[in-house]
Amino acid sequence: MIHFQQNFKQQLTKKEIKVIDETFSILKEEKDSNSIGYYKLYETSQDILKGVKRYKKENKYLKNKKIKNIVVVGIGGSSLGTKAVYELIKLKQKSTINLIFLENVDPLDIASKTKDIKKTNSLFIVISKSGSTIETISIFKYVLEKFNLDLKKDNSRLIAITDKGSNLSKLAIKNNIPQFNIPLNVGGRFSVLSAVGIVPLVLAGYKVEKTLEGSKIFIESFFDKKENHLLQKAYYYFKNKDKYCINTLFSYSTYFSYFNDWYVQLWGESLGKINRSNKKVGLTPVGLVGSIDQHSFLQLIIQGVENKTVSFIQIEDFGKKVQIPNINIDFLEKTDYVNSCNFDKLLNEECNATIESLIDEKVPTDKIVLDKLSEKNIGILLSYYEILTSAVGAFLDINTYDQPGVEFGKKKLVKKFS
Amino acid sequence: MIHFQQNFKQQLTKKEIKVIDETFSILKEEKDSNSIGYYKLYETSQDILKGVKRYKKENKYLKNKKIKNIVVVGIGGSSLGTKAVYELIKLKQKSTINLIFLENVDPLDIASKTKDIKKTNSLFIVISKSGSTIETISIFKYVLEKFNLDLKKDNSRLIAITDKGSNLSKLAIKNNIPQFNIPLNVGGRFSVLSAVGIVPLVLAGYKVEKTLEGSKIFIESFFDKKENHLLQKAYYYFKNKDKYCINTLFSYSTYFSYFNDWYVQLWGESLGKINRSNKKVGLTPVGLVGSIDQHSFLQLIIQGVENKTVSFIQIEDFGKKVQIPNINIDFLEKTDYVNSCNFDKLLNEECNATIESLIDEKVPTDKIVLDKLSEKNIGILLSYYEILTSAVGAFLDINTYDQPGVEFGKKKLVKKFS
Repeated sequence: MIHFQQNFKQQLTKKEIKVIDETFSILKEEKDSNSIGYYKLYETSQDILKGVKRYKKENKYLKNKKIKNIVVVGIGGSSLGTKAVYELIKLKQKSTINLIFLENVDPLDIASKTKDIKKTNSLFIVISKSGSTIETISIFKYVLEKFNLDLKKDNSRLIAITDKGSNLSKLAIKNNIPQFNIPLNVGGRFSVLSAVGIVPLVLAGYKVEKTLEGSKIFIESFFDKKENHLLQKAYYYFKNKDKYCINTLFSYSTYFSYFNDWYVQLWGESLGKINRSNKKVGLTPVGLVGSIDQHSFLQLIIQGVENKTVSFIQIEDFGKKVQIPNINIDFLEKTDYVNSCNFDKLLNEECNATIESLIDEKVPTDKIVLDKLSEKNIGILLSYYEILTSAVGAFLDINTYDQPGVEFGKKKLVKKFS
Repeated sequence: MIHFQQNFKQQLTKKEIKVIDETFSILKEEKDSNSIGYYKLYETSQDILKGVKRYKKENKYLKNKKIKNIVVVGIGGSSLGTKAVYELIKLKQKSTINLIFLENVDPLDIASKTKDIKKTNSLFIVISKSGSTIETISIFKYVLEKFNLDLKKDNSRLIAITDKGSNLSKLAIKNNIPQFNIPLNVGGRFSVLSAVGIVPLVLAGYKVEKTLEGSKIFIESFFDKKENHLLQKAYYYFKNKDKYCINTLFSYSTYFSYFNDWYVQLWGESLGKINRSNKKVGLTPVGLVGSIDQHSFLQLIIQGVENKTVSFIQIEDFGKKVQIPNINIDFLEKTDYVNSCNFDKLLNEECNATIESLIDEKVPTDKIVLDKLSEKNIGILLSYYEILTSAVGAFLDINTYDQPGVEFGKKKLVKKFS
């Protein structure tokens, strides 16, 4: 269960309520017409789930428990969501298989991350929606050479995840490399609950059924009009976009740092667009981790220019109690007020105290409270943020799902090598 | 060597040149009067360096090479800078000792990070400038109990880094715990080259002399008026603060991610202030890693609201050549244009292509080029960003060095436990 609480107030006019209703209809139309596919991934991914389970049973290396590493070669939408879920799901489920992400073309990073990998105990997944991402294919080539992987002979060690019909897909077919496809109506940054996230996680030994269930629960609830807070928040962000141009997500747990990164891509790449009136619009995401960033970014929120909204993520029950010992130390008596408390209480009360400080300063805040760290809650949270993004995009009158600006540099890059 | 290149142009009026000169004088006065101490850390830290080297020779556990972990308990300014240098310096120097940072009061994080630590092979450093940071002291208590550390009997396993006269300092004196002090005129976020960074790094086996030397070189060069680009950039940021309210640092290497975090604290906490005309001012920092974030944040920079400046960090020579194999794969021929290139060339050309795209879109950019990853360059870069921060702060007419807003929540927190 997740509880959503908004601390900003807005009086909506009849006209505004109509605009909000229309936006709901836009999203419903995206879903019902299947023009946008992420709304139904909890359904369409069931086949992927079955497929990867079958693959797991049949793959000779996995069957014989020889696999210690699942190496994911992918960047952006092909890695960020999986990393976010992986970081959280590891807290709930145990596995002896590592997921390793080769994302960056930094030579030292690639060398370091592949140093301890052996061909004999690894599977390699190459993920590219378009099938031709230059970073991904370059690293894939490196992996092929370094581990002496033959596309045909070693196809049991290789998996491709890509769009049906892409060049990577054709390559997979030619070499009999198992492949899983991303639905064509699901964009990279909305693809975490497609094959992109499911295949690596399941192969690494994690169960994702409940995460898909969480997604289903939230999406159905939203389209049953039971999550009106979401549209109201989206509208508030849209309406105040000039004043509050930065939307901060302040997650109170170390383990949300990759979730924050996923949010940053989802929000930034979806909402930074030229709108249908030919105007550059967009909202800037910032991800913070509490309480660490109280000692970094909070001063700016409190006393800096009033241009930020702040959403807090809080976990009520961490599932593990770690106590602050009841030790009295001479000269440090002033810190004794937290003695015998659990660290989660300290963490959450810091979050609450920070929220109250921001309310005092009239910073628009809201709080997203997970009753616990659970697979289901992860699914709810992913879908919440995806729909929130779609809703703000609809208000902004943009195409939320493309990324034309990213192409500009690609052409220049090719020229530099010619 | 670091080369600084600015791609934005500004025509300065005589009046503006005078304002810039005055700001230079303010910074010079801060330095010469010793009111701000970070400008001279390359000098004042020499004693710390000698002290920690002596300590290293004399400490019975270090002498007998029994230490595998240096555990740093600290948050914000007490950890971010050290982490930034550690991540980079590890690429240049080898050591068998791990630096482990206990920063967050997240119960799962604390439990996980302390799981494999043993008392018998670890030293514990508690760092708090004020000496009473609630997170730090709470984790310190946890560490004392978990590892059965007695303040007196185990004082050879403990080190305190704090202000002279703080309660933590008094505790250290009482229990004969070795302590190193942070100069009173050096704020937490400017303290990386004080005992805060030097002691953990040196104990973990890293040489920091050249980093201090880099700092000295840049600071002296700046005050010799040989780095005027810095003041011009600072003035540009100040002058355009309403339009360009976000200053993005786009570092093209995975190993700059903690440097980015350090920058975010330095910039955000220093510049987000109520100015002397009682107005909330501030510039928002965002840290990005290239080329990864080309697939995340770049779309927003290119087509979103024009409210961002972007600084690029590029490393010319990574010191290690890792080649993209010359493999032609059917269907992937379009990616062959980078075959046989080194990954660093691909990475840097991606950076250059991105800069050109942003120039086309009239985004103000600048490029900071390190000829190589070196200890000296790290020192130059740290000091460059510190002085840049001071300069923008002087233009903004704020106290760059305090953080009053952070206190608001602290009082509320205490109440929650009473």
